[in-house]
Amino acid sequence: MKDFELKLENFAKLAVEFGVNVQKGEDLIINSPIEEPSLARKIAKAAYEKGANDVIINWSDDYLTRLDYKYKSQETLNNVYEHIIKKNEYFYEKRLANRISIYSEDPDLLNGLDQKKIAESIRERSKKMKKFTKYTMNDLVSWLVISIPTKKWAMKVFPDLDENEAVEKLWDEIFKTSRIDTSYQKTLENWQNHVNTLNEKADFLNSHQFDKVHYKSENGTDLVVELPKNHIWMSADSKNSKGDKFVPNIPTEEVFTAPKKTGVNGRLVAVKPLVYNGVVIDEFEFEFKEGKVIDFKAKKGEETLKEMLDSDEGAKYLGEIALVPYDSPISLSNVLFFNTLFDENASCHFALGKAYPTCVKGASELSDQQLNSVGLNDSLIHEDFMVGAKDLEIIGYKDDKAYPIFKDGNWA
Amino acid sequence: MKDFELKLENFAKLAVEFGVNVQKGEDLIINSPIEEPSLARKIAKAAYEKGANDVIINWSDDYLTRLDYKYKSQETLNNVYEHIIKKNEYFYEKRLANRISIYSEDPDLLNGLDQKKIAESIRERSKKMKKFTKYTMNDLVSWLVISIPTKKWAMKVFPDLDENEAVEKLWDEIFKTSRIDTSYQKTLENWQNHVNTLNEKADFLNSHQFDKVHYKSENGTDLVVELPKNHIWMSADSKNSKGDKFVPNIPTEEVFTAPKKTGVNGRLVAVKPLVYNGVVIDEFEFEFKEGKVIDFKAKKGEETLKEMLDSDEGAKYLGEIALVPYDSPISLSNVLFFNTLFDENASCHFALGKAYPTCVKGASELSDQQLNSVGLNDSLIHEDFMVGAKDLEIIGYKDDKAYPIFKDGNWA
Repeated sequence: MKDFELKLENFAKLAVEFGVNVQKGEDLIINSPIEEPSLARKIAKAAYEKGANDVIINWSDDYLTRLDYKYKSQETLNNVYEHIIKKNEYFYEKRLANRISIYSEDPDLLNGLDQKKIAESIRERSKKMKKFTKYTMNDLVSWLVISIPTKKWAMKVFPDLDENEAVEKLWDEIFKTSRIDTSYQKTLENWQNHVNTLNEKADFLNSHQFDKVHYKSENGTDLVVELPKNHIWMSADSKNSKGDKFVPNIPTEEVFTAPKKTGVNGRLVAVKPLVYNGVVIDEFEFEFKEGKVIDFKAKKGEETLKEMLDSDEGAKYLGEIALVPYDSPISLSNVLFFNTLFDENASCHFALGKAYPTCVKGASELSDQQLNSVGLNDSLIHEDFMVGAKDLEIIGYKDDKAYPIFKDGNWA
Repeated sequence: MKDFELKLENFAKLAVEFGVNVQKGEDLIINSPIEEPSLARKIAKAAYEKGANDVIINWSDDYLTRLDYKYKSQETLNNVYEHIIKKNEYFYEKRLANRISIYSEDPDLLNGLDQKKIAESIRERSKKMKKFTKYTMNDLVSWLVISIPTKKWAMKVFPDLDENEAVEKLWDEIFKTSRIDTSYQKTLENWQNHVNTLNEKADFLNSHQFDKVHYKSENGTDLVVELPKNHIWMSADSKNSKGDKFVPNIPTEEVFTAPKKTGVNGRLVAVKPLVYNGVVIDEFEFEFKEGKVIDFKAKKGEETLKEMLDSDEGAKYLGEIALVPYDSPISLSNVLFFNTLFDENASCHFALGKAYPTCVKGASELSDQQLNSVGLNDSLIHEDFMVGAKDLEIIGYKDDKAYPIFKDGNWA
């Protein structure tokens, strides 16, 4: 690819300086697949050049992950070693370390393996790691999710290309949707403008403080979602507990808040597949009553979807409502990424599971147990799924007065 | 390469079944470079198939290692995180886990960086990890060192080839010197025969219990080495604390024991370069008096050699004396590997630093502090260097009677 090295360099700098916004003397933890170390290496270098104290890369390997789920006993899989807890305590609690996750999993990674075994182990390990989720969900630390192509993922997205072409094409799409230019100055400007535009939408929604929103589409979606009192629509940027700005997703196109846990009623039909625990779930829908999923079906991956909903009580309630225009750049690329970071930013979406406490004024100070009292859901999971049909209509209500928010899939 | 996959598979099985000899329910820790994960993956699979409870791969990346030494402060470099100590305590002390290190470092990795900074950090971290060395040095756990080609290493060994050719040629040399056949049965037989041959040499030496040995060569080597009472010449195989046999090096051609710490006198001239802390040391020699290095010089890497000798008091004394015929298969390959695992098995060698307590009867039960009393050296380091010239003559003495051991570089 022309200018590949230049763009990769700018991507790494953007992740460090604008994404997590590493400060002198801070630590940075990077999760990266071993298959493609180029971005993690450049990020590490950029972070050290910004004065980072220590950069630690947690390397992962899809091949080993699959072996683990296949061969390990349930007991061994459910376990979290004490040294892993210690490591997280140190870097989250003591160091408030920055986190960058390079998420590039093969969407079919765990296909054909025992779904019950996988679900149980993920649930049990999530319980043991639950105390750390607040560090990212409440924005106590700077965190960032980005992606780079791996071979199997690229072949899933572009099955008609050969492996090298698919990888190159996926790099290209990632650079484009992530607004990476050959000039770093231009890349930064792209992002500053983009964040401003998204913040304007959030400001509009926040100033109206809608009581509820009504989703309607010809595909069968017909859902009313109440919003909690003092809810906050958030967009691209956030602030960590030290007061430093950061941007947790690159790319990002969404404006999002949390629904009122018990105030969701109606039918919701997904428009894109969802990859969960290495399995693709497709053509699925939910029926909600008083916030809870009371019925669901999926043409593909239904067993995995069931395991997901059974993670805990909160997994059957919504935790996020997010607005993305049908004509967003990622959506216009017409690429189905099989990767939530991209697909969620191509479509209006919801998440089942834990709500971001930052979405209700003052809720970041509450314990997990207290979130209920302000209408926020808590769960071990937080899984986005896409509902933004081409004809989606969203109407906001304030004191029974109607305001069009989305029309024909785009901002009204 | 023809039959590459087959040989790789047999290499992995040999490492698991004959190398560390993994037993059902045990854990296996693998250290592997990310650049070439193929062997680590196959080893993990082979271990699970033998009933391993958990296989953990500690991935490393030369690129990041160099960044770390370049950018981190001395204080950060000297530190060992508590979770790393916990991890080692658990897997060494509680689980007696098997260890496989895939050692494939770029021989010039840390060239041009601050050697004092590197040496201090390695010394400080070694001190903090010292309590774990007995698990391998005393054979409490099964451990194994093997190698696979990485690009920079392969290009150092075969600088006239292009990168792919160099890597392929190095694979070929590794398979050959490691006695890997396309048949696993044949591979195992190769190793059983080889271990028997080496054990015969060790039995001969053990039955004589020489008081001292005298090294002489035209290159200037003229050294007398006293041996401790009740010394044991070891060879390829060993037994861990559970009584399971294992083979700690593949390849291996050596028969070795420990010298008497204070009983080494004379001049010792190296015949091959030594890679230490990512720097090549070459054309070097030592002068010993009562066991201690009292003078040394090196045409290349002298600063690094000095740092090595200054690691601690024990770094100036010998900890291993090893016999390898000049006509060993690795030596006959005429390849200079710039990797101790291979180069030490192509040449008679010594090690500066810690002695293997297994080389003196009953010494495995002694504390580090007590090793002195049986004539064994203790140190943070254990670094092999090669002295096996073509004309090397070694004479053993028992009660002043002379026995030829080596003549013209080979077993007499």
